[in-house]
Amino acid sequence: MQNELTILAAGGDLRYDTAARALAEVAAVFTIALPTGTPCPEGLRADLLLLPCPVSADGVHLLAPQSEKRWPLAALLSRLKPGAPVLGGLFGETAALFKAAGHPVADYTRDERFALRNALPTAEGAVAILLDRLPRTLDGASVLVTGYGRIGRVLAAKLTALGADVTVAARKPTDRVKAELAGCRAVPFEALPTVASGFDAVCSTVPAKVVTADVLAALPAEAPVVDLASAPGSVDEEAARVLGRTVIPARGLPGKCAPVTAGRILAETVREIVDDEGGDGVWI
Amino acid sequence: MQNELTILAAGGDLRYDTAARALAEVAAVFTIALPTGTPCPEGLRADLLLLPCPVSADGVHLLAPQSEKRWPLAALLSRLKPGAPVLGGLFGETAALFKAAGHPVADYTRDERFALRNALPTAEGAVAILLDRLPRTLDGASVLVTGYGRIGRVLAAKLTALGADVTVAARKPTDRVKAELAGCRAVPFEALPTVASGFDAVCSTVPAKVVTADVLAALPAEAPVVDLASAPGSVDEEAARVLGRTVIPARGLPGKCAPVTAGRILAETVREIVDDEGGDGVWI
Amino acid sequence: MQNELTILAAGGDLRYDTAARALAEVAAVFTIALPTGTPCPEGLRADLLLLPCPVSADGVHLLAPQSEKRWPLAALLSRLKPGAPVLGGLFGETAALFKAAGHPVADYTRDERFALRNALPTAEGAVAILLDRLPRTLDGASVLVTGYGRIGRVLAAKLTALGADVTVAARKPTDRVKAELAGCRAVPFEALPTVASGFDAVCSTVPAKVVTADVLAALPAEAPVVDLASAPGSVDEEAARVLGRTVIPARGLPGKCAPVTAGRILAETVREIVDDEGGDGVWI
Amino acid sequence: MQNELTILAAGGDLRYDTAARALAEVAAVFTIALPTGTPCPEGLRADLLLLPCPVSADGVHLLAPQSEKRWPLAALLSRLKPGAPVLGGLFGETAALFKAAGHPVADYTRDERFALRNALPTAEGAVAILLDRLPRTLDGASVLVTGYGRIGRVLAAKLTALGADVTVAARKPTDRVKAELAGCRAVPFEALPTVASGFDAVCSTVPAKVVTADVLAALPAEAPVVDLASAPGSVDEEAARVLGRTVIPARGLPGKCAPVTAGRILAETVREIVDDEGGDGVWI
Repeated sequence: MQNELTILAAGGDLRYDTAARALAEVAAVFTIALPTGTPCPEGLRADLLLLPCPVSADGVHLLAPQSEKRWPLAALLSRLKPGAPVLGGLFGETAALFKAAGHPVADYTRDERFALRNALPTAEGAVAILLDRLPRTLDGASVLVTGYGRIGRVLAAKLTALGADVTVAARKPTDRVKAELAGCRAVPFEALPTVASGFDAVCSTVPAKVVTADVLAALPAEAPVVDLASAPGSVDEEAARVLGRTVIPARGLPGKCAPVTAGRILAETVREIVDDEGGDGVWI
Repeated sequence: MQNELTILAAGGDLRYDTAARALAEVAAVFTIALPTGTPCPEGLRADLLLLPCPVSADGVHLLAPQSEKRWPLAALLSRLKPGAPVLGGLFGETAALFKAAGHPVADYTRDERFALRNALPTAEGAVAILLDRLPRTLDGASVLVTGYGRIGRVLAAKLTALGADVTVAARKPTDRVKAELAGCRAVPFEALPTVASGFDAVCSTVPAKVVTADVLAALPAEAPVVDLASAPGSVDEEAARVLGRTVIPARGLPGKCAPVTAGRILAETVREIVDDEGGDGVWI
Repeated sequence: MQNELTILAAGGDLRYDTAARALAEVAAVFTIALPTGTPCPEGLRADLLLLPCPVSADGVHLLAPQSEKRWPLAALLSRLKPGAPVLGGLFGETAALFKAAGHPVADYTRDERFALRNALPTAEGAVAILLDRLPRTLDGASVLVTGYGRIGRVLAAKLTALGADVTVAARKPTDRVKAELAGCRAVPFEALPTVASGFDAVCSTVPAKVVTADVLAALPAEAPVVDLASAPGSVDEEAARVLGRTVIPARGLPGKCAPVTAGRILAETVREIVDDEGGDGVWI
Repeated sequence: MQNELTILAAGGDLRYDTAARALAEVAAVFTIALPTGTPCPEGLRADLLLLPCPVSADGVHLLAPQSEKRWPLAALLSRLKPGAPVLGGLFGETAALFKAAGHPVADYTRDERFALRNALPTAEGAVAILLDRLPRTLDGASVLVTGYGRIGRVLAAKLTALGADVTVAARKPTDRVKAELAGCRAVPFEALPTVASGFDAVCSTVPAKVVTADVLAALPAEAPVVDLASAPGSVDEEAARVLGRTVIPARGLPGKCAPVTAGRILAETVREIVDDEGGDGVWI
C-alpha cells in the first residue's frame, strides 16, 4: 500500500475506529461518523472509501451507530477522487450508487483471508459462551461441533486445547479424517441422533438445519446449543421450542466479543485488497 | 470407602447437591436442607456428616441457602452415630460443638488434593472473565499472571493453550524457571513496574499485595486486573481506585462457574479423606 | 464391509502383515509371501486381492521382500473370483494385467483419506530426524516448513506443540493465513532468501524445487534440510552439494518409522474403498 | 555478573565450548583443553574457574575428552586469583584440592535451576528414543511415565502434546492429582502390575527399582523400557534379562542429544550462581 494514500473511513461501530487507527499507520486517514480519528476536512478528495458492514440499514443512509447525524450515502461521493475504490461489507442495493458514479466496489466480507481471520474471534466468543453456560468445566466436557470449515476447525482446536472431548460432525469423509488428525472424534451427520445423548454442549457452524428435531430430542435436556451459523442458522428452532432446548444464537461474535481485533483484521484485509489490486471475487 | 456407609449431607448450594449425588454411587446418602436426594428419615444415625463451606454464617445455624428453614448445627448431632466423623469447610468456632460431642472433625479445604483440583474450575473461571472483558482476542494478548502456585500454573497453561503470551511473576527463582519450561516468560516482582505497560490484562493469584500502586500506574489504563487471591486479595485497591483501574474480584469461582464440577471434586475428596483415615493436616 | 468377505493379501513389507491382521477382524484373510497370517490354501478364490505399494519392482513379479520365492503377478489371477477387485499402490504397467482379466483395479495411494492419515507418521518421522540431527532442543528452535498441505499442516502443528518457532512458507495467501491461525509465522517463497539465515532447520514438503540455491546459501551452514517431498524432491541438490549443506532425503517415512500404524491405515483405507464402492478417483 | 570478570573454562565436551561462547557475551573467557575460544595466556589469573561434569575421571587429571594432553588439576591452581571460586560438576575427591588452596567450590549440578532446565533436553531425548524404537506413532500410543518430578512432568507434557495417552505412576497422591490436571491418567505404583499390559512403552524417571519383575512380566513383550533414572536406574535389570524385555539406558541425554542447549543452560547457571553469591546448597 502506498504510504501517501488518503483513506476516508465512514460509519460503523467500535471496530471501525480500530480499523481507522490501524490504517493510519500506513495512510492518511480521515473519518466521518466515527468518534476517533481526524474528521474529514472540507474539500478532501480521498483515494479510498471504507464503509461498514452492512453499509446501510435502509439502503439510503450510512450505518452510523456512533453518530447522531444521518449521512446519506450519496453525500459521500463528493469526498472521493474520480475512480477511487469503495470498500464495504454486504452492500446490497447500495453498490449501484457507487458503481454508477464510476467507483470500483469491493466487498471485504468476500475475502477468504478476512473470513479465515475472523474465525479466531468467533471461536473465542463461542468458548466464552460455553464457559458461561456450562455448570461444569470445559475440561473433560463432551462437546459436539458441527461442521469442519473455517470456524469449526479453529473452534475444535480451542476446545481441545482446553481439555474438552470434541466430536466433529462433518459430511465429507476427508473432513472427518482431518478432524481425527486434530485429535477429535468424527462422525457423519446421520450418526448424530445415536450419539447426541453423550454431549454436554453443541456448537453448530453449518449454515443448514443439521441440528434437527431428532438430534435435539436425543441431547441431554440441559445441554446448551450455540448456533454460530449465519442466518437462518443451524438449528430447527421450532423443534427446540417444543422440546424446551436452550438455543443460543451467536452471530457477529468478532464485533461483539473482540471489536479491537475485528478492527485490526479489517484494516489488514483492506491493505491486502489494495495491494492485490483485486482478485478472489472481492470486487463486485 | 465401604459401600454400606451412611452419609448425611446437610446444607450448602448447588455444589452440595452434586456432591450428594456423586457420593450416592458409593454410599447411602440422605440430605437435609438440600432440594435433591433422599430426605433424612426420622431416627437415622449416619456414619458421616458432610457440611458446606463455610459451615455456618452465624456460628450457630447451618449455611443452607437452598432451604427456607433455619437449622441449628446442634440439632444435627442427634442424627449421627457415636464417633461419626464430621467433614466441612472452614468450621471456625463451630468445630468445637462437634468435637465436644466426640466427633472427629475434618476441614476438606485443607486437603491439598481438593485445592489442586479446584485450580481447574478457578482457571476456567478466570479465562471466562478475560474473554468477557478484553476487547481483543486472548490469542496474541499479553497477560500477566502473578504467582506460580496451584492456580497460577493451571491458569498460565490454559492461557498459553489459547494462544496468549503469558508472563509469570514469581518470587522464587525455581518457580520462574518452571514457568519458562512451560513456555511462559518469567520475571521477579521487582520487575513488574518496568514491564507492566505491555500487558493487556492481569490475573493475580498471590495472597499478598503484589499488584502495587507502582504496577497499577504502569499498566495500560484499560487493562483489567482479575484478583483471584483469597481475602484480602492481591491488589492495592485504594491505589486502583485513585488511578481508575478496573479490578475484578474473583473468589469462589469453582462454585460460581462450575458448581457441578465443584461438587464432584468435593465428593472425590470426601471419599479420599474417608479412605485415607486421616492424614495431611485435614483433621482439626 | 461384509463380514464373510475373503481377502488375499500378497506381498509387501511389515506394514502388510499389520494390514492383514487388522483386516482379519472383519474378513477371512489369507496371505501369500507374508510371514504372518493363514497361508492361502490350494483352490481358494478370494473376493479381493490386496497388493503392496509399489505392486512390483520389475513389472512382472510381486514385490515380496519378506519371501524368498518369486511370485509372478499373473499367478495370482487364479486365486481370485471372477470380477474380484484388486487393490494396490502405484500399479504402473501391472494394472493392465488385472484389468484384462476383468478385475476392477484401485490404487489406494490415490485415496485422499489414505494420504491424510499417512501425514501423521510422516510428521512424526520428520520430528524424529530433527531431534536426532539438531545439536539443540526443538523447544525454542526456529524451523522452516515449506508447504502447508497435508504434511505441512500436521508437521507444523507437531513442531509448535514441542515448543519450536515455526515459519511456514506457502504460495497461497489463504494458506499463509491458515498457518498464522495455527500459531506459525508465514511468508511467501520470495521472502525465503531474506529470512533463511534465522532458521535452525528446514523441513520441505513441496514437490517442486523451492529450496533454491539462494535459500541454501542464506541458511546457517549447519542447519539440516529434511526433504519430505516425493521425487524429485524440494531441494536444489546440486547447489546443496556445492554449498556443503546437509540434505536428508526423507521419503516413505510411514513404512520406515511406523510400519504398524502404516499397516492399520492401509487396512482402514481398504475397508473404506470397499464400503464406498468406488469414488474419488481411486479406481483406475 | 560484572562485565570485567575473567573466566577460565577448562576441559569437557562440546557443551563446554558452547558454555564458554555463551559466557563470553558477559565476561572475558579463556580456555584450556577446549578447541574453541581464546587459549589461556601465560600469566593469566582468572576470577573464576569453570570445570566439567564430572571434574575428573581419575581424581587427579582434568576430564578433557577434546584434548590430547593430560592436565593435572593441581596445575590449574596457578591460573587463579586468590580466593577465585571454582565451579564444576560432581567433584568427588577433587574438591579438597581447591578448597585446600583457599578457593570456594560450587557444584552446579546441585543447583535446582540447572536440574530443572536440563529436564527439557532430557525429555526431548526420551521422545527421540521412543520415536526411534516404537513401530507405531506416538500419537495414540499408550505410554507409562514413572515419577512426576522434574523430568516426569516435562516428559509427560511433551508426550501429551504429541498425542500420546500418558499414564503417570507416582507415589504421592498430590503428584497423581497434578498429573491428572495435566491431562494424564495417574496410578500408584502398586497398580502397575495390573495395568502394565496396556502400555506400548515405558519411560522411567524414578531413581529406585520401581519397574519390578512383576511390572516387566505384565508389559507387552515388545514394549521398550527407557530408563532415565540416574544410576543405578529404575529397572530390575536381572528380571528384564530373564524376561527378554528391551531396556534402553538413557542417562546424560542433555549432553548427548542437545549439547548446544546443555552448554547454554550451564552458562546461564554459572551466571546465576555468581550473581546469587551462593545459596541453595550449591557451595560445597
